Amino acid sequence: EVTLSSERYGVRRLPFSRLSPSDRAFFQALMPGRVLTDPQELEPFNVDWLKSVRGSSELMLKPQTTEEVSQILRYCHARNLAVNPQGGNTGLVGGSVPVFDEIILSSSLMNRIISFDKVSGILVCQAGCVLEKLNEYVEEQGFVMPLDLGAKGSCHIGGNVATNAGGLRLLRYGSLRGTVLGLEVVLADGSVLNCLTSLRKDNTGYDLKQLFIGSEGTLGVITAVSILCPHKPKAVNLAFLGCQSFAKVLETFTTCRAMLGEILSAFEFMDEKCMELVEKHLKLSSPVAGSPFYILIETSGSSPTHDKEKLSNFLEQAMTSGLVTDGTVAADDKKIKTLWSLRERITEALTHEGYVYKYDISLPVGKLYDLVTYTRARLGHSAKNVVGYGHLGDGNLHLNITAESYSHSLLDAIEPFVYEWTARYKGSISAEHGLGFKKKQFIQYSKPSEAIFLMQRFKAMLDPKGILNPYKMLPSSS
Amino acid sequence: EVTLSSERYGVRRLPFSRLSPSDRAFFQALMPGRVLTDPQELEPFNVDWLKSVRGSSELMLKPQTTEEVSQILRYCHARNLAVNPQGGNTGLVGGSVPVFDEIILSSSLMNRIISFDKVSGILVCQAGCVLEKLNEYVEEQGFVMPLDLGAKGSCHIGGNVATNAGGLRLLRYGSLRGTVLGLEVVLADGSVLNCLTSLRKDNTGYDLKQLFIGSEGTLGVITAVSILCPHKPKAVNLAFLGCQSFAKVLETFTTCRAMLGEILSAFEFMDEKCMELVEKHLKLSSPVAGSPFYILIETSGSSPTHDKEKLSNFLEQAMTSGLVTDGTVAADDKKIKTLWSLRERITEALTHEGYVYKYDISLPVGKLYDLVTYTRARLGHSAKNVVGYGHLGDGNLHLNITAESYSHSLLDAIEPFVYEWTARYKGSISAEHGLGFKKKQFIQYSKPSEAIFLMQRFKAMLDPKGILNPYKMLPSSS
Repeated sequence: EVTLSSERYGVRRLPFSRLSPSDRAFFQALMPGRVLTDPQELEPFNVDWLKSVRGSSELMLKPQTTEEVSQILRYCHARNLAVNPQGGNTGLVGGSVPVFDEIILSSSLMNRIISFDKVSGILVCQAGCVLEKLNEYVEEQGFVMPLDLGAKGSCHIGGNVATNAGGLRLLRYGSLRGTVLGLEVVLADGSVLNCLTSLRKDNTGYDLKQLFIGSEGTLGVITAVSILCPHKPKAVNLAFLGCQSFAKVLETFTTCRAMLGEILSAFEFMDEKCMELVEKHLKLSSPVAGSPFYILIETSGSSPTHDKEKLSNFLEQAMTSGLVTDGTVAADDKKIKTLWSLRERITEALTHEGYVYKYDISLPVGKLYDLVTYTRARLGHSAKNVVGYGHLGDGNLHLNITAESYSHSLLDAIEPFVYEWTARYKGSISAEHGLGFKKKQFIQYSKPSEAIFLMQRFKAMLDPKGILNPYKMLPSSS
Repeated sequence: EVTLSSERYGVRRLPFSRLSPSDRAFFQALMPGRVLTDPQELEPFNVDWLKSVRGSSELMLKPQTTEEVSQILRYCHARNLAVNPQGGNTGLVGGSVPVFDEIILSSSLMNRIISFDKVSGILVCQAGCVLEKLNEYVEEQGFVMPLDLGAKGSCHIGGNVATNAGGLRLLRYGSLRGTVLGLEVVLADGSVLNCLTSLRKDNTGYDLKQLFIGSEGTLGVITAVSILCPHKPKAVNLAFLGCQSFAKVLETFTTCRAMLGEILSAFEFMDEKCMELVEKHLKLSSPVAGSPFYILIETSGSSPTHDKEKLSNFLEQAMTSGLVTDGTVAADDKKIKTLWSLRERITEALTHEGYVYKYDISLPVGKLYDLVTYTRARLGHSAKNVVGYGHLGDGNLHLNITAESYSHSLLDAIEPFVYEWTARYKGSISAEHGLGFKKKQFIQYSKPSEAIFLMQRFKAMLDPKGILNPYKMLPSSS
């Protein structure tokens, strides 16, 4: 069951043009066979992955080249037609689907690898390449993509960049702001901005690409990406551990950072409720049980012997000092994948519970789980489950609340409580998911009004008619 | 001997107001005792470190707080007075000194550390803190600054961020675009933009701070910085090696990346001419001699035993396969510092040669030294020395040409040759030094005209009167 966006959020359609027969004819002529108009076929692109918001677009376009994207936007700009850029449609904040009848501009056919340099590890590709496919491609040549996330099988690299996706490898390889070296972007009026360089360092003028990273399709449409891939580690080890309290999780993290140092590549945590749901809905079985908290630690390094030694020294220390009560270790690919899936598939398991209220919060790491505890106490029996998991190493909590179905009163009990609590500790109300459609009215909990005003001026400058992904990311200026 | 900027570059003073007695009185009242007007005292701040450009400012202001910076800019904006923000004045492209009579806005008294979190390693400080002082401060608490450069004893962190400084640790800890977590900036009209957060991840709106990183003081004045410091490595090792050809330098780099992996923290190279000059002018002695190329490799890691083993395995491989002919290794602090100074003090040694034409180029690593060879052949005896060194691991070459004194004809032989050659291989004409005053007319060799046009629009939006660091970074729009 999908709640209609416009109704639920009280947003009104802006006075963009409506699609006319001649508009349809223009697109059909421009890209025959790559224009979708059948409502049935459009359905999966009008609804988000969580089935929480639905648009009513009547037209989806599938360009193959930057030139086609440019022609589409030039036309839409002249005609005042709104456009919803869409990648793999895996976003969690309603940013990737239309709100009303925006034209869906899909990157699905822009999936060509342009070049890969085996010396530097620099990959240049079109925006519609699927993350997992790219990772397979570069792995064959001894590299890995600098980012990894649960949605890798569907998400597009262009969407990853447009939303500044974080994910599971950020702790080690840093954010896309460092690894993305260049972008090609088509602006709202159809002009092409080619900043698709492949240089590690370039201080010639303002770094324009940064403005488009994380702009959620509101400032331009990313058509190609140049990205730096790290070498594929020769050794990967995983430890899945049980902890008796969140305080011990934190202490384990400190010990782990000191003892594993440069080979630490992920430090994830989840509470026991998460594990219960993954086991219940997805029939996965956890090798460790009976703990209120679980930790997943990954190491990646260049020496299997050294890495194993570091890991076992750390585990011995963690066990003997009582930080960790139980655990298992994996070094072979298959077991590693199985253990990772316990963490990666939590999001999926939650969707089986009914309606999910999702929060993606950055906080000082010591405060991370307090928010879950307070929310759980506050909601009592009105919620089915209140769970916490996430990228502890980055100070990033995923707080999820489930109920049989959506209810206004439960939402009122959660919001603005969660946002106010986050703001009190100077956290971010969206660590990595972005603001999209569902969170845009809450930006002021994390950004001062002068910053929001400046963002609105950038938007007005780059997209004066506001045709790119309207109703998203920034609060309405009125 | 200093060449006057305006004469040499044919730039005309823009119609900003001239300082009036009442302007002076206003500043004296605002910050008594922190206003410099004596020409003698102003001299070192009117001339750049290289003594290549000179301005003629009659006023330097030394604010202590953000509020004072705000009041200064609000006043200058209203009065149409031009301002030259200045940190440690260590820039190499004439960006840090006035061109005409701009008011110098110094960050030298804004040197307060605001906070340091020992768990996360996040440092928040005012913009005028000296890099080396910050490094000493965080080292005491088990961390290091994520950047290091030769000018560390004088440069200010605000200037580092404003110029997106690269330096010696970029290979390991990435660029400031990843490590700077927040900024406080005063805009041209005096309004304060507070984005001084301390979160590893925050996807709430456009990442405004990125626009100010590397904007060379043309869009706003950075007053405070929040930066993520990595843990101080438990083990640091240095190897200083001799190589018989640049091809072998490249092969050594490939071998080194594979064998040292995650502990590699610097890979620097220099040609024999560099070593000659460092020995001649600074009386430093190189422990390795008789090679046309030298390499400096640094490792940083968490296990002294593991790191030593990795390094000696690599060295054995490099020696037996003939990649490297001679070398020395250091693990104690003093010897490490001595070896590093051979590389870090090349810039200083060059200034003893007379006039230095400096180029800071990004290129695909395989092409890096070809530019030195071609330039040397092209210039023949008209140049005293043509030397090449730099951050090979980042694809960053420092090409330097020396002569007894400045000459137009030698400059004409170098430029635009060097820029055209760089553009042909899609390189950057400024990898890390920025454009400042001396390189701003060459931006088009590395950026397309649409990008430059967009930069000019950002500048016009944020600083409509153009009072912030005029004549710098962007080419004149007329």
